[in-house]
Amino acid sequence: MSTDLFGRDLVVLNLGLGGFAEAIEGADATAVDIDWRPPAGGSAEVGAALAETINRPEIERANETAFARYHAANPVLRGVGRALDVLPGMGERTILHAGPPVEWAEMCGPMQGAVLGAILFEGWAEDLDAARAVADSGEITFDPCHHHDAVGPMSGVTCPSMPMWIVDNTAGGNTAYSSLNEGLGKVLRFGANSPDVIERLGWMRAGLADVLSRALDTHGPFELKPLIAQALHMGDEVHNRNVAASSLLFKRLLPSALRSGAPTDEVARAFEFIAGNDHFFVNLSMAAAKVMLDAATGVANSSMVTVMARNGVRFGIRMSGTGDRWFTTEAPIVDGLYFSGFTRDDAARDIGDSAITETAGLGGFAMAAAPAIVQFVGGNPSQAIAASREMRSITIGENSAFTLPILDFAATPAGIDVRKVVDTGILPIINTGIAHKDAGVGQIGAGITTAPLACFTQAVAALRAGLGDG
Amino acid sequence: MSTDLFGRDLVVLNLGLGGFAEAIEGADATAVDIDWRPPAGGSAEVGAALAETINRPEIERANETAFARYHAANPVLRGVGRALDVLPGMGERTILHAGPPVEWAEMCGPMQGAVLGAILFEGWAEDLDAARAVADSGEITFDPCHHHDAVGPMSGVTCPSMPMWIVDNTAGGNTAYSSLNEGLGKVLRFGANSPDVIERLGWMRAGLADVLSRALDTHGPFELKPLIAQALHMGDEVHNRNVAASSLLFKRLLPSALRSGAPTDEVARAFEFIAGNDHFFVNLSMAAAKVMLDAATGVANSSMVTVMARNGVRFGIRMSGTGDRWFTTEAPIVDGLYFSGFTRDDAARDIGDSAITETAGLGGFAMAAAPAIVQFVGGNPSQAIAASREMRSITIGENSAFTLPILDFAATPAGIDVRKVVDTGILPIINTGIAHKDAGVGQIGAGITTAPLACFTQAVAALRAGLGDG
Repeated sequence: MSTDLFGRDLVVLNLGLGGFAEAIEGADATAVDIDWRPPAGGSAEVGAALAETINRPEIERANETAFARYHAANPVLRGVGRALDVLPGMGERTILHAGPPVEWAEMCGPMQGAVLGAILFEGWAEDLDAARAVADSGEITFDPCHHHDAVGPMSGVTCPSMPMWIVDNTAGGNTAYSSLNEGLGKVLRFGANSPDVIERLGWMRAGLADVLSRALDTHGPFELKPLIAQALHMGDEVHNRNVAASSLLFKRLLPSALRSGAPTDEVARAFEFIAGNDHFFVNLSMAAAKVMLDAATGVANSSMVTVMARNGVRFGIRMSGTGDRWFTTEAPIVDGLYFSGFTRDDAARDIGDSAITETAGLGGFAMAAAPAIVQFVGGNPSQAIAASREMRSITIGENSAFTLPILDFAATPAGIDVRKVVDTGILPIINTGIAHKDAGVGQIGAGITTAPLACFTQAVAALRAGLGDG
Repeated sequence: MSTDLFGRDLVVLNLGLGGFAEAIEGADATAVDIDWRPPAGGSAEVGAALAETINRPEIERANETAFARYHAANPVLRGVGRALDVLPGMGERTILHAGPPVEWAEMCGPMQGAVLGAILFEGWAEDLDAARAVADSGEITFDPCHHHDAVGPMSGVTCPSMPMWIVDNTAGGNTAYSSLNEGLGKVLRFGANSPDVIERLGWMRAGLADVLSRALDTHGPFELKPLIAQALHMGDEVHNRNVAASSLLFKRLLPSALRSGAPTDEVARAFEFIAGNDHFFVNLSMAAAKVMLDAATGVANSSMVTVMARNGVRFGIRMSGTGDRWFTTEAPIVDGLYFSGFTRDDAARDIGDSAITETAGLGGFAMAAAPAIVQFVGGNPSQAIAASREMRSITIGENSAFTLPILDFAATPAGIDVRKVVDTGILPIINTGIAHKDAGVGQIGAGITTAPLACFTQAVAALRAGLGDG
């Protein structure tokens, strides 16, 4: 029936193997790169809602507006302040956590461990039993970081006296915040709460915050986009690889710290601490991503994703057009590279606000910048490059501030469109750390995961519902 | 005559377009990648000498020995010392320069400019006219850096009171040296000699050297291979891109500097200076390369290249089997990216000892690690990757300490074999800065160049002559 096909010129479609398409394009020929999955996950109902959101001028216009605000955002590091003083709506007995809302009783192991640590750190209890009683009592308000313009990695636990990075969007007038990074190993954000963890947090609140605060006062505010852009040219994707960005920040702040009048031994201790932590920058990268995306929120009818976040139980996203509303589903367990002695059975469900970096076109979306990251999160360099290419299928545009050398300096794909995710079935890629499911053990691996489709189908339904009659 | 060819299975040879071969290999198929040029540059005489050096067990054994010594070398940064005190054979009225030997009268503009600056710096003359008279008088000994276990970028001008990095090979017992990097713009190594240049050198000899020396005494010696290896994973090739390595060095030394007892304001000034110079590490990278290659020198019958260096007039190489002997030819003018307002007509001939990095498997040989460098030296990322692949055709082995993420963490090609260069016609690639031909102007561009074939044909002839009767 189709034998005459062989008598014609063939159009060769390249299915999935991006490397081939790249070589063909490199040789000035034309390649057609196709990746097909059933739209709407195969659901007729979702497919119908999706169909009514396609080619709607009000959505396209809204996305243009939202994306332009994100793209124009100019994150500027202003200083360091105490959470209670700087976070909007922060209460004296409030503890913030990563991801969408979750009750104390429902929290996963590492988040509960971190909450107990925070109660000890604040001096609301003397030991773990007493801390648990405080948590059980109902006198603590638990709230997502995202409800206070903040983000936190892993458990994201943030309490009133913690020092926070303050990042202004000077192009839009909004501000975002994040805690300071404690380093690897036994740390609060992975649920550790032993005395050494609390002691380190105490020094961070006193010595480290003082040195950084004075250094920034001496230095003056500085733009984070150029620093992130440079780090992308140095093999970071500023989510799970931050060695370049951390080094650049170190180099940037040190001379000011020395001139700030802070005691030399405190400066030495602070910068020794930063030098020993190649992930130090990730909290700043998150705050920068948050402030860029918050600029894009609340544009009616926009299908642009402004938040992806996980609380260790549920994965949640927010969409510009629906503002503060969460679309949630069960958080996945991450297939990744587990540290020696640990397996998938030991893993907590996906956790942390750090997927804000991917939401902003960094992290997994910029993985082509960071081929060496595969030693940490798995896969190989070709897959890392393919990931950045594939994300173009589900994004509204590119962030021209962030370029990827190995892709001939192409800009990173940015601005996830919930419609495109549901239409293509291509899920946003996220590079992530993996926490042990029990409190106190810490990080047990890292890997590449994806945002669950169900969040996006809910968002499409909400988008459809928000339109006038189709 | 050959129509029956089409009746057979075709063996497809990939000629030159490495990108195709890569994609085919990535798809688990087999690619045959061929690049053919006439051997021995087409000369029958050279071809005959070459033929007698191929498959000679004494050469293969010698190369194994030489390469093993290079590969085992462990460059360790020990400290900073004064050239007159630390360089073997350094005289009180000696000025060292880059490349093979060259007389004062014959030196190119930037090298003469740097020599005059060095005379002012040493206080041997009060002004430029007097300095020229001193240089003309014959009372100064001019010698290559390489004759004193040292290397210097661009003009390489090194005088007795200059501070030098001291790098030991703890696996072989030899030591190498290099000056400290002055930064970009108007600097001595590009032939500038104005009062601000001499003043900066004065502070480097006093304040900077003191801070670095104290920091290293406090820190203790440390291995450079791991730092270079990490920088390769951060987008450096440690010749013309050193931003990562410079940042890592900064981060490494700063805490020790603060604990060393050096005055805080001097530490601040020193590290501000380092923070402002993304090329600061290149002199250390050169000293590390030098100490690794010196370990491989003097192995009778070895055809391994141990030095490639240029003095702005001639390009010279040395070969392990012939020890200190130079094989020289006219240095090329570099086709590169010229800074605004300058062209090839303004360029000095290729200059500097920095090609020691390529000789050691770094720089152009490791360019696949540094796709972003093409913004500085020209070309595109695919060509950068292809360069590292092509150098495999002319090298004895790989340096397993230095891996290239984008090539699936393949080790960098290292140990240039003069026979393979002459046989394939593939010339060693060198990333380089370009100096203005007149003294005092400074850097006017950067580019990718190659070592001239004539050096290698001479070396092959010497290799042949050193064998017993063939």
